[in-house]
Amino acid sequence: GHFARIDHQRQQRTGFPEVVWGPGKTPEQIAEILARMRPYYPCVMATRISADVFAAVRSRLGGLHYFEVAQICSTAPILPPAYPGQVGLVCAGTADLPVAEEAAITLQLSGFAVERFWDVGVAGIHRLLSVRDRLETMQVLIVVAGMEGALPSVVAGLVSAAVIAVPTSIGYGANLGGLAPLLTMLNSCAPGIGVVNIDNGFGAAMLAAKMLRSLPQRAATGSM
Amino acid sequence: GHFARIDHQRQQRTGFPEVVWGPGKTPEQIAEILARMRPYYPCVMATRISADVFAAVRSRLGGLHYFEVAQICSTAPILPPAYPGQVGLVCAGTADLPVAEEAAITLQLSGFAVERFWDVGVAGIHRLLSVRDRLETMQVLIVVAGMEGALPSVVAGLVSAAVIAVPTSIGYGANLGGLAPLLTMLNSCAPGIGVVNIDNGFGAAMLAAKMLRSLPQRAATGSM
Amino acid sequence: GHFARIDHQRQQRTGFPEVVWGPGKTPEQIAEILARMRPYYPCVMATRISADVFAAVRSRLGGLHYFEVAQICSTAPILPPAYPGQVGLVCAGTADLPVAEEAAITLQLSGFAVERFWDVGVAGIHRLLSVRDRLETMQVLIVVAGMEGALPSVVAGLVSAAVIAVPTSIGYGANLGGLAPLLTMLNSCAPGIGVVNIDNGFGAAMLAAKMLRSLPQRAATGSM
Amino acid sequence: GHFARIDHQRQQRTGFPEVVWGPGKTPEQIAEILARMRPYYPCVMATRISADVFAAVRSRLGGLHYFEVAQICSTAPILPPAYPGQVGLVCAGTADLPVAEEAAITLQLSGFAVERFWDVGVAGIHRLLSVRDRLETMQVLIVVAGMEGALPSVVAGLVSAAVIAVPTSIGYGANLGGLAPLLTMLNSCAPGIGVVNIDNGFGAAMLAAKMLRSLPQRAATGSM
Amino acid sequence: GHFARIDHQRQQRTGFPEVVWGPGKTPEQIAEILARMRPYYPCVMATRISADVFAAVRSRLGGLHYFEVAQICSTAPILPPAYPGQVGLVCAGTADLPVAEEAAITLQLSGFAVERFWDVGVAGIHRLLSVRDRLETMQVLIVVAGMEGALPSVVAGLVSAAVIAVPTSIGYGANLGGLAPLLTMLNSCAPGIGVVNIDNGFGAAMLAAKMLRSLPQRAATGSM
Amino acid sequence: GHFARIDHQRQQRTGFPEVVWGPGKTPEQIAEILARMRPYYPCVMATRISADVFAAVRSRLGGLHYFEVAQICSTAPILPPAYPGQVGLVCAGTADLPVAEEAAITLQLSGFAVERFWDVGVAGIHRLLSVRDRLETMQVLIVVAGMEGALPSVVAGLVSAAVIAVPTSIGYGANLGGLAPLLTMLNSCAPGIGVVNIDNGFGAAMLAAKMLRSLPQRAATGSM
Amino acid sequence: GHFARIDHQRQQRTGFPEVVWGPGKTPEQIAEILARMRPYYPCVMATRISADVFAAVRSRLGGLHYFEVAQICSTAPILPPAYPGQVGLVCAGTADLPVAEEAAITLQLSGFAVERFWDVGVAGIHRLLSVRDRLETMQVLIVVAGMEGALPSVVAGLVSAAVIAVPTSIGYGANLGGLAPLLTMLNSCAPGIGVVNIDNGFGAAMLAAKMLRSLPQRAATGSM
Amino acid sequence: GHFARIDHQRQQRTGFPEVVWGPGKTPEQIAEILARMRPYYPCVMATRISADVFAAVRSRLGGLHYFEVAQICSTAPILPPAYPGQVGLVCAGTADLPVAEEAAITLQLSGFAVERFWDVGVAGIHRLLSVRDRLETMQVLIVVAGMEGALPSVVAGLVSAAVIAVPTSIGYGANLGGLAPLLTMLNSCAPGIGVVNIDNGFGAAMLAAKMLRSLPQRAATGSM
Ligand SMILES: Nc1ncnc2c1ncn2[C@@H]1O[C@H](COP(=O)(O)O)[C@@H](O)[C@H]1O
Ligand SMILES: Nc1ncnc2c1ncn2[C@@H]1O[C@H](COP(=O)(O)O)[C@@H](O)[C@H]1O
Ligand SMILES: Nc1ncnc2c1ncn2[C@@H]1O[C@H](COP(=O)(O)O)[C@@H](O)[C@H]1O
Ligand SMILES: Nc1ncnc2c1ncn2[C@@H]1O[C@H](COP(=O)(O)O)[C@@H](O)[C@H]1O
Ligand SMILES: [Mg+2]
Ligand SMILES: [Mg+2]
Ligand SMILES: [Mg+2]
Ligand SMILES: [Mg+2]
Ligand SMILES: [Mg+2]
Ligand SMILES: [Mg+2]
Ligand SMILES: [Mg+2]
Ligand SMILES: [Mg+2]
Repeated sequence: GHFARIDHQRQQRTGFPEVVWGPGKTPEQIAEILARMRPYYPCVMATRISADVFAAVRSRLGGLHYFEVAQICSTAPILPPAYPGQVGLVCAGTADLPVAEEAAITLQLSGFAVERFWDVGVAGIHRLLSVRDRLETMQVLIVVAGMEGALPSVVAGLVSAAVIAVPTSIGYGANLGGLAPLLTMLNSCAPGIGVVNIDNGFGAAMLAAKMLRSLPQRAATGSM
Repeated sequence: GHFARIDHQRQQRTGFPEVVWGPGKTPEQIAEILARMRPYYPCVMATRISADVFAAVRSRLGGLHYFEVAQICSTAPILPPAYPGQVGLVCAGTADLPVAEEAAITLQLSGFAVERFWDVGVAGIHRLLSVRDRLETMQVLIVVAGMEGALPSVVAGLVSAAVIAVPTSIGYGANLGGLAPLLTMLNSCAPGIGVVNIDNGFGAAMLAAKMLRSLPQRAATGSM
Repeated sequence: GHFARIDHQRQQRTGFPEVVWGPGKTPEQIAEILARMRPYYPCVMATRISADVFAAVRSRLGGLHYFEVAQICSTAPILPPAYPGQVGLVCAGTADLPVAEEAAITLQLSGFAVERFWDVGVAGIHRLLSVRDRLETMQVLIVVAGMEGALPSVVAGLVSAAVIAVPTSIGYGANLGGLAPLLTMLNSCAPGIGVVNIDNGFGAAMLAAKMLRSLPQRAATGSM
Repeated sequence: GHFARIDHQRQQRTGFPEVVWGPGKTPEQIAEILARMRPYYPCVMATRISADVFAAVRSRLGGLHYFEVAQICSTAPILPPAYPGQVGLVCAGTADLPVAEEAAITLQLSGFAVERFWDVGVAGIHRLLSVRDRLETMQVLIVVAGMEGALPSVVAGLVSAAVIAVPTSIGYGANLGGLAPLLTMLNSCAPGIGVVNIDNGFGAAMLAAKMLRSLPQRAATGSM
Repeated sequence: GHFARIDHQRQQRTGFPEVVWGPGKTPEQIAEILARMRPYYPCVMATRISADVFAAVRSRLGGLHYFEVAQICSTAPILPPAYPGQVGLVCAGTADLPVAEEAAITLQLSGFAVERFWDVGVAGIHRLLSVRDRLETMQVLIVVAGMEGALPSVVAGLVSAAVIAVPTSIGYGANLGGLAPLLTMLNSCAPGIGVVNIDNGFGAAMLAAKMLRSLPQRAATGSM
Repeated sequence: GHFARIDHQRQQRTGFPEVVWGPGKTPEQIAEILARMRPYYPCVMATRISADVFAAVRSRLGGLHYFEVAQICSTAPILPPAYPGQVGLVCAGTADLPVAEEAAITLQLSGFAVERFWDVGVAGIHRLLSVRDRLETMQVLIVVAGMEGALPSVVAGLVSAAVIAVPTSIGYGANLGGLAPLLTMLNSCAPGIGVVNIDNGFGAAMLAAKMLRSLPQRAATGSM
Repeated sequence: GHFARIDHQRQQRTGFPEVVWGPGKTPEQIAEILARMRPYYPCVMATRISADVFAAVRSRLGGLHYFEVAQICSTAPILPPAYPGQVGLVCAGTADLPVAEEAAITLQLSGFAVERFWDVGVAGIHRLLSVRDRLETMQVLIVVAGMEGALPSVVAGLVSAAVIAVPTSIGYGANLGGLAPLLTMLNSCAPGIGVVNIDNGFGAAMLAAKMLRSLPQRAATGSM
Repeated sequence: GHFARIDHQRQQRTGFPEVVWGPGKTPEQIAEILARMRPYYPCVMATRISADVFAAVRSRLGGLHYFEVAQICSTAPILPPAYPGQVGLVCAGTADLPVAEEAAITLQLSGFAVERFWDVGVAGIHRLLSVRDRLETMQVLIVVAGMEGALPSVVAGLVSAAVIAVPTSIGYGANLGGLAPLLTMLNSCAPGIGVVNIDNGFGAAMLAAKMLRSLPQRAATGSM
């Protein structure tokens, strides 16, 4: 497809291959790109793939795996973690699950271990405090929240790992499609929080993966 | 002054007399309005009065009291509480103090008891948890916060009293002059929060006062 | 369902049990959560439930009640008020009714008495003045308005009870999905107004309920 | 001054001569333009002229008149009305006076009769109701309000004259420099309101003048 | 229907009866309100009525008239003008026609004469200049424009009648649903323009009608 | 100065050398950068230089030229045009002059011929029509306007040259610091308009210069 | 159709005939306008025509050509270029193709040569650097990008031709329907970029065409 | 000072002590907090301290260090790095230096090694490419940019380390106080970027420090 110029050096440059972004692509195009890339990489992923689109892609290309809540399809299954470290995935409410699962599955397909902490929003802070000890053992935390998005501030004040905050578009009224929790996270009074775009579970996973993967091996050759 | 049509029935209609809003009025005008109203009410207040303006007002009118952090001047001092109940004033950071004090002094001059809980922001949640028992004894809570404004959500999930949330313009960058914490408070996932305008400590105090004052006496004659 | 971590201490902490927020949940999930919670509470509610969704929920779980205009389903019917005091529900136009009914039914299912004042918008102010005497007997007022949202300002200047203002998304053009009446209510020149999110009838009801329920009994043990 | 190309046909085309907009002009430029135009028109006005700027203009050009609250200077004084009809000027609060006076003086200098109704905001609706009979005798109404800007809606629902609404930048917090009352006025549920820009008393006056001046004489030659 | 409190004094107070706003009402409700009001007024209108909704209303209530481009239905046909004067309706592009027709039909059903000037946008200014003489004979002008909304500025600089500007939501990209032309019209450098809400042809017609109707008869008893 | 990494290849790559942007630089830094660059280029410019800053720069570095309205200083004077073609500079009002002059002087210092058409805003369209014949002889037009910014639409509909539109921050109220005319220009119904940032006369000049300079010589070797 | 006043002098004034903008027109109207214009111009175009609408238009009018990705229909096919010069069309990602093709086909139907550079976004900058030599031979560049829209800045810093930037609405979350890349392009630190409205490939093509067409012939008679 | 409740457990919980945020604090308060904290921590910092404020603080408390460009004062000097790894600090333009230095000095005072890459903005991409090899040796990158903020996208596509993006308020016109580059960074098409608030160099440094410090030691006890 001359419509897509696949960036084959991307893995070499940035450590990860291109990922197919589903929206605006036909099932034919998605199947073709996956087929063209599969020979070169252990696992190729496409994100934002609804069950209907997946059915149409699968009818054109065999051997695919599908993760429905995460809306991800891939050319390989989840395998045991290939890298050291663990990412804690923290999620405020039930409705934020699709975004949180997009992050979780992306990490697992990329070879990282994750632990899930679902439905621990700040309206019942004891739920978060009760998992604090487990959170302390994570190397990075991804915190997903909609509505007012206060959860990352509280988490970043409780534990020492770096926090990646993902605002979701869950809410109504003055939520403004996720702008309200996005602003909350950017203005957090607890320092050490990196924010990604609204509903961007994939982007959060890539940032966590870069932190976990590049650091230990590079640290050995650190140039101070 | 024909420039101001004092609303003398307001106390009868709504329970509280007019309060002089300082911005855009000259010291002469402020002094004149206070002088005209003083004979009719036990306590007349003016808000948003800087120390400089107060000096100019005092040089024209004697017998005034001034509360510098709150930027309030009044024709009467703070007296022992005249009404039952107590308002808890909770404040996230040091920089939110002027707004929180505007609320506190307004309530005290209006005859209500208050208790202050300063600098208990969510970046160190244990500070809030350590005052939880005292908070539980309040009849109403006013929670003041800038930056991301997450504090009211956490408080409303912890205690059973009604929460009045006041966003402040403290912050920088994407704080947008207080719009960020305002949106946070409106989108709170913890129900039972009433929001007032940015930096509007006075408005929060008036709402708390209406709750405390009108309910007990009215409840007796409730018409279910 | 591991997808939902029910916050069973919430009633103990805040006085009210968790309420199921319908959007983004399947009928199966809604039925399951209602079934799990029903044994523990006299009345469990779900909000934002369309007639279609309710039909699907009812086919899985018996004994439910449905309030169509309010889009609420519950495990118990409306019973006679259990608490003293009365909430006045004031609504500007016909199109604001669903939001106003969400507030009304939430209060009635929670044990409070309400009185409805429908279609009294400011374009015909005499309609409001003609119900002023009844409004004066209410302990709290919830005022619902879309378009320009001027009604709460006028009401708060007329009566002494605390006013909870609910902007609605009713309007067109520069209404901006309810942002216009939201701004109006936050900027009100009449003090003593607490604002909730756009279309948030449920949140307004919870705030009114907290005012009515906690105050009288607590006032007895007030600690001035 | 080649910097200004005076539009001498404007009076012929639109009924009124060009008016000098003060901001961004030096006192020298203002004096020069007034001097160049004075021979051709009975009255030339400059708006948004502070007392300091006026002093500097007057030191260069004699025979000027100054209206301090309105921030207007002119080459002629206010004379008895030259046109039939009367414009009612209604203003919500004391701080809106400069904008309301800009409208009033512009009308009076242009030969129209005005009546002022100051400080009749909706927080005390009886103040407005008490002047309703006088308002009914006006041919056009200009209603000036800041904060939430609810006054034009109430007025337009009370009387039959056309209403011109002027939002002001008076307020704080989420007032957004006058955007809040501007949105309120545009979304009014009472029809028959024309809105002008924030703080634009001059524009409101010009619209009222066009209504009053062109209609009666033209109606005689109406071409139905 | 207790759902609607018809404001029967509105005609007496403001000169025009209530008009039924279609959105959010069922055909049953619309038919019922029209039936209840018809005995009292020569013509009752409902706006924003699609052809489908009209079919459903007509099957319940006879004797109705429908204007499809304008999306208006009424209990009476257009009759010869009852009032002196004429309103010029100027429209920038073909896509603005529904809004312009809403204004035109509202005026005609209310007894006023109109003349239409369609598709005279500023991208071809000669089209406007070629109708300038006819425009000069109008008593009021309603100018409807989407996209950048520049037309009212040019018209107000050409002729002496008052201009009512109506922004439309026609456009794309940074048009922002009509906010772009709305801002253009509010910021016009040509004075004497009153702006109504986006797509609000009805509101523009009501303002024009108030100007035309109240002025001549009132002027006779003007109280200078 | 290690604080600035001068991009010496820029002229080779893009046809023009780096230009010093004044804001946020001390007079010392500006003088140093100009001194370092002067040996390599026939003319080095600095923009947004107030008269005060220029005085301080001149006291450190001789041989500079200053253009006060344009707020530009340069190492060379304006010389006769070095390139064919002419840029028409059209400006709506007197207050837009500084932005229009920034564009004019930038072009003249870069070797291009310009013609100025000042104060021809749309409120008096005949002023524009009277210069139309001269406009027709220009190869490119830069149109500068604040307030509602309607001028570029009218110009682009009148003449055949490409139009570069520059919104200015001149205005008040809902002008929003120039966002209103920016939106107007982006939404223009007349095609063939390229928009630059608010008040960015320099950017408009660079775009015009690129059009004029690169086209004729390149066309000769055009590769169709 | 009296609904459309065709601007037949437009080609004479601005060099190009009117183009039919599809949205909001019925297939009947589109067919009628094309039929009325076809006799007078070598090629008449309609934009934003979906495949469905085209089918309906074609059933009414024969001899049309359709370009599906570009959503354009025309009365003539693409012919060999009629003008010297070449426009480079640069596009960041696969999803931006419809906008880029709207620009390309508009140019080709208008008689200009184009070269396409697809899928060269900044996440893999080497893709852009590898086509730099070809880009250098273009007389004008149109750069289309969604998401963050950084591509025009990089291109304008690399080559000397004028750059026309087109933001697209491709993206999610805080992309805000294309406002994010629009702001990026307006704020570019590389000078010489003209921006058009979001998704406005047609407008970009018209601006490029005006640059290419009017310059060479006019330069001959340049009046310095 | 009861005005500040120092959070002494913060270092234990999150790895870093509280830092004094200067804005809104008097020199007396800053000096008092530094004096109270100094006995407990090796280095206490205050940020956003202007040279004037520092002079006033120093006159009350000895032994302080000051970093003028970064606007930071501290109780200890910069010492040799205490932790492995290195943070690359990349900055687009000269005017972004204060924000970039706030990040650099915060990291150095906290015991981390940094390398500075100043003035490598995308308008001259070769400047960035020429330092690419050095960038590849960094463990984390902080990229600071104002105006359109395109730099982080390009950097994240070139190297494999995690990128922390800091938008600055440098710019003009539609830069909107830094909102434009903030949106650019959030919408980046290159994955693996975490964004902090506008001008928040301190927050970026804390996030980088958490990544570098917690990972290696924690990885040893990782629980996969
Ligand atoms: N869910 C996602 N959210 C954001 N970006 C994504 C997502 N999935 C894929 N991407 C990015 O989009 C790029 C694919 O763009 P495309 O060339 O249109 O397929 C990938 O290389 C990723 O960087
Ligand atoms: N700090 C404050 N914030 C908001 N509203 C206030 C404040 N102080 C006074 N007000 C309101 O402003 C009114 C006075 O307005 P004025 O007539 O301008 O003095 C009072 O009656 C209050 O309702
Ligand atoms: N097209 C329209 N645009 C704006 N307002 C309208 C329109 N049609 C009717 N209205 C107003 O809406 C009111 C009816 O509201 P309702 O009680 O909901 O029917 C009328 O009295 C008018 O003031
Ligand atoms: N430059 C800065 N930008 C953002 N946050 C900061 C900055 N400096 C300090 N802080 C945060 O503000 C807190 C101090 O707030 P305060 O109690 O008001 O001194 C610190 O603990 C940091 O989390
Ligand atoms: Mg939950
Ligand atoms: Mg603190
Ligand atoms: Mg009604
Ligand atoms: Mg007052
Ligand atoms: Mg047309
Ligand atoms: Mg002028
Ligand atoms: Mg691609
Ligand atoms: Mg530089």
